[in-house]
Amino acid sequence: MNEHVKQSNLCCDFVNRAKGKKDNKTRLYRYAGNFSWKGVKPERYKPAGKDWSDIARQTLIGNRGETSKFHLRYFEIAPEGYSSFEMHKHEHVVIGIRGKGICIAGKKEYRISFLDTLYIKPNEPHQLKNTFKEPFGFFCLVNARRDRPKTLKGR
Amino acid sequence: MNEHVKQSNLCCDFVNRAKGKKDNKTRLYRYAGNFSWKGVKPERYKPAGKDWSDIARQTLIGNRGETSKFHLRYFEIAPEGYSSFEMHKHEHVVIGIRGKGICIAGKKEYRISFLDTLYIKPNEPHQLKNTFKEPFGFFCLVNARRDRPKTLKGR
Repeated sequence: MNEHVKQSNLCCDFVNRAKGKKDNKTRLYRYAGNFSWKGVKPERYKPAGKDWSDIARQTLIGNRGETSKFHLRYFEIAPEGYSSFEMHKHEHVVIGIRGKGICIAGKKEYRISFLDTLYIKPNEPHQLKNTFKEPFGFFCLVNARRDRPKTLKGR
Repeated sequence: MNEHVKQSNLCCDFVNRAKGKKDNKTRLYRYAGNFSWKGVKPERYKPAGKDWSDIARQTLIGNRGETSKFHLRYFEIAPEGYSSFEMHKHEHVVIGIRGKGICIAGKKEYRISFLDTLYIKPNEPHQLKNTFKEPFGFFCLVNARRDRPKTLKGR
């Protein structure tokens, strides 16, 4: 993971949603290597929280005035990092891009590797974590309008 | 491209939308190599049309009862293949996955390679094509509820 994006925010965040209308233009985000995109700034929010650690976020589609009903983000979890254990009404789609990681969803545990695609249904308690030695990067698709996650205990 | 999925439907299709409620379950679509996923059937629709050619589709998220406001599909265009030149009110997000291809959108032409991400705004005339020697594979994200494309002339 790039140092400058080392810690930003958790996967199921509710922060930094589109703030009013910006330009809704056709635009290419050219892949610049090392899991970064030209025109997409790494997002930094806060140091490691109590219930999550070592997650970086890049919003590819969602905060530049796009009118699509969905947002596309790329997250990266450093080794030993993890997202909050939480639930919400909105669905998630996770697509493995870099390395591998684990997603706990409901009573199951899924290993996510390159292009593995996980649909997480509404109100399914879930958590993503990296128990491996390389960064775990994935796309996470969500509805543009979505409810705030509830953090759960017990993990 | 696998022979059995060689021709199915165009990118901006309106066919085979979710047909009533099925089960809305958390589910992993394990990547099975060769740009195929376990549990995802290649879709075949019709032989080459007048305005499109050599496109295969796999619907990862969208026709198994998922309630997300978006659908995720993987398309592959064989060398010399192309989608309809068309427009519609709904947005597209295209993410390059396999090989490379060209997307004409508005007055511009974009080369799409691995992880390049293109947002196409509403009502932007567009066409995807493969002018290269290897298959061109990409994810295409769309709103679950979307309008029917209008086919355009002139390309």
